[in-house]
Amino acid sequence: MAMSLNITIKLKLLNKPGNLAKVLSVIAQEGGSLGAIDLISASPSHVTRELMVRLRDRNHYNSLLEALQRISQVQILQVADRVFNRHLGGKIEVNPRRPVLNWEDLSLVYTPGVAAICETIDEHADMAYKLTMKGNTVAIVTDGSAILGLGNLGPTAALPVMEGKAVLFKQFANVDAIPLCLDIHEPQQIIDAVIALAPSFGGINLEDIAAPKCFIIEETLKERLQIPVFHDDQHGTAVVTLAGLINALKVVGKKIDNIKVVLNGAGAAGIAITKLLINAGVADIIVCDRKGAISKANKPEELSKLWVAENTNPREVKGSLKEVIKGADAFIGVSGPGQLNREDILSMSDNPVVFALANPEPEIQPEEIYDIAGVIATGRSDYPNQINNALVFPGLFRGALNCHARTINTEMCLAAANALAEIVTEEQLGAENIIPSIFNEQVAPAVARAVEESAELTGVARKILPGEIQ
Amino acid sequence: MAMSLNITIKLKLLNKPGNLAKVLSVIAQEGGSLGAIDLISASPSHVTRELMVRLRDRNHYNSLLEALQRISQVQILQVADRVFNRHLGGKIEVNPRRPVLNWEDLSLVYTPGVAAICETIDEHADMAYKLTMKGNTVAIVTDGSAILGLGNLGPTAALPVMEGKAVLFKQFANVDAIPLCLDIHEPQQIIDAVIALAPSFGGINLEDIAAPKCFIIEETLKERLQIPVFHDDQHGTAVVTLAGLINALKVVGKKIDNIKVVLNGAGAAGIAITKLLINAGVADIIVCDRKGAISKANKPEELSKLWVAENTNPREVKGSLKEVIKGADAFIGVSGPGQLNREDILSMSDNPVVFALANPEPEIQPEEIYDIAGVIATGRSDYPNQINNALVFPGLFRGALNCHARTINTEMCLAAANALAEIVTEEQLGAENIIPSIFNEQVAPAVARAVEESAELTGVARKILPGEIQ
Repeated sequence: MAMSLNITIKLKLLNKPGNLAKVLSVIAQEGGSLGAIDLISASPSHVTRELMVRLRDRNHYNSLLEALQRISQVQILQVADRVFNRHLGGKIEVNPRRPVLNWEDLSLVYTPGVAAICETIDEHADMAYKLTMKGNTVAIVTDGSAILGLGNLGPTAALPVMEGKAVLFKQFANVDAIPLCLDIHEPQQIIDAVIALAPSFGGINLEDIAAPKCFIIEETLKERLQIPVFHDDQHGTAVVTLAGLINALKVVGKKIDNIKVVLNGAGAAGIAITKLLINAGVADIIVCDRKGAISKANKPEELSKLWVAENTNPREVKGSLKEVIKGADAFIGVSGPGQLNREDILSMSDNPVVFALANPEPEIQPEEIYDIAGVIATGRSDYPNQINNALVFPGLFRGALNCHARTINTEMCLAAANALAEIVTEEQLGAENIIPSIFNEQVAPAVARAVEESAELTGVARKILPGEIQ
Repeated sequence: MAMSLNITIKLKLLNKPGNLAKVLSVIAQEGGSLGAIDLISASPSHVTRELMVRLRDRNHYNSLLEALQRISQVQILQVADRVFNRHLGGKIEVNPRRPVLNWEDLSLVYTPGVAAICETIDEHADMAYKLTMKGNTVAIVTDGSAILGLGNLGPTAALPVMEGKAVLFKQFANVDAIPLCLDIHEPQQIIDAVIALAPSFGGINLEDIAAPKCFIIEETLKERLQIPVFHDDQHGTAVVTLAGLINALKVVGKKIDNIKVVLNGAGAAGIAITKLLINAGVADIIVCDRKGAISKANKPEELSKLWVAENTNPREVKGSLKEVIKGADAFIGVSGPGQLNREDILSMSDNPVVFALANPEPEIQPEEIYDIAGVIATGRSDYPNQINNALVFPGLFRGALNCHARTINTEMCLAAANALAEIVTEEQLGAENIIPSIFNEQVAPAVARAVEESAELTGVARKILPGEIQ
């Protein structure tokens, strides 16, 4: 069970040996995960300490608090929800790039000076990339229909996730990102709203929109708009998964065009990964949904799965996930917990690559298969090899914005995956180190460079006129 | 003619007396307006100087440059368009309120921690005011159909103005404002888009949307949304005009409920000013459009003017502006240049108040009537008494956001006008000082306080639950 409640407990203890130990053992008994312990103040009679503790949820919190209250010689001064505190007042703000301190400044950035800029853009629309926020700004658009693992909570409840994403965009790649949580749910409404909104933005990051509507929304917007439209849950996941697979195959000594891949979960992420892996050279990939392997024989009804039927499973293998995984070189799970067991992994080929990406609970716990898998990756930060979209979207949009790209195409995604894989040097590469940390400062610049080069090569970079007088 | 091109000219002159004078006289002959003169470097042989000059337009610039090139012993090193330079890269950016430096931070502001915030908002939607950007963020929405005096240039060309406005929102009142320039033009489309967008925002500032569609858009959005919707071109102008009028009447010693007002220009601003003045106690106001005084006798077709016919002009006066202005105590012009002459002002009552707000060219030049008017105000920063919306919108939204207001009502607008008027103390008040400078740091806090109090009094402030654990 994931620990999703982070609290800070401030305690006043009688200054006698053993009191802190009592507290710590209660926390351990109650199943809390202890973080830092801080000393706030101390006197001969009392000690005040602050403890960071992770708990499962509100119930877990209540039972821990009751247990702590039963300890004599310990007084609870304050309990703070650290996540709550970090969200007070919101997580992003909008700032002037340069201050306006006097009439002179005002006349340059607002009326009357600004009129000349409006007229310049009226004559040459692309000058907006140079003279406005558009050149560095991305809209993060959601309808809140598929928030994290929480489901369809709607637009307002989605806002904290979108703001968090905006923080990462800025922090990792200096991209200005604006959360737009839309209170509409029909695909055509969302398409119309995004087209209406597009003029202020140099790119659109679609986020947490449920399948299958996410497919038609993204496809239509890509056709209609002349700026990049990128559904991160699909393509961000696909790029980071491919990067991980490229390095995992180096570790186990196999070639990408020569492996058998089984992917479980034919949703938005699963289908996007499948398409990108095929573009990267994977020739033998079988996609499973709840009914087992999708193939030409069992024509699915959904359009997106029909594509899968027609473009994967060349050997037309039938059967359940547990049947078709036999002999596979790589498993990629974007489904749910407990899909596989140790025997299933043993039935794969030698040194199998296991990407159990379901979050928070993977398809199989890494602990069960450390000794038999070649490489294991998950979506979690508490295991090695975290397959995390945050490795991709900041640098990818940075690269697209740098050249005012008209779209993000498959070549740019492949370039991003290769650049990301290459950050892990030969010396660093290993079964527990196939992918860099998201705090590795090389990541976003390397991804951006590769994406920008690929945009230039494939002709989707935009040339902007130089300004007059300068 | 307004000077809308601001340039910096860097010159290298032979170090002999009289060379700078030659340059300055050429600039004066060419009609350029000289600003600061800076010394960059000097040697026994040469002096390098930087001159700031305002010009009318590109043609004016070309002719000045030719004239300067004809001066011997002077070399032009560089010419920079200062407005252009201040717009490079855009004027606003989106920043994290607190940095994300490590896994601990990330787990608090993004997954997995953020899920608890989503769930809190899912249970209590109003908690979004406390835990997200919503509580401090306003959308500046336009379709670019009435940009400044430039007309309908569309959404992309409107972006520099909206960004400038976002700069002022932050600078004056710490409001985070996001420009959204919509590529749609039918009122119903704009209404639908703004309703769709609303969840991320604590308020909507409509801007530069043409009349008459701006009326139905604002009215409908006010009915449909539970956040303030405020068309600044209407109500911002009305509030600052009323504030100016309150103080102008103190200067000329007249009472608001006892004056005759003639307003010229029955567009968005004119009608909003009329409504607010009536609410502030003005009993006798005549509104003129191009055809002259609007009255019950000449039922206009437009809905907005029909309201004017039914609610103004109690004496049912007929005639042109020049006819009906006779005997008036105050003239308010939101129309265009050259509507009135000196004789018209002489035909008004004693000590007439003349607000010639057309921009950039007022209805009558202040120079023509300094000796005969009681108080003169314009929309320009180069005359005393500038009636500038920037005195209102930052503080007004600050006050509304402070109490999570559901709307901005007439009482809040009246409170804002009174607060703004009161900033000018009795000692400061005079014919050339009826309104504070927008750089007066008291303005936004005073307006915000008055608006917040009025929102509480009129029951439109929102009470937010306190958070759990804290």
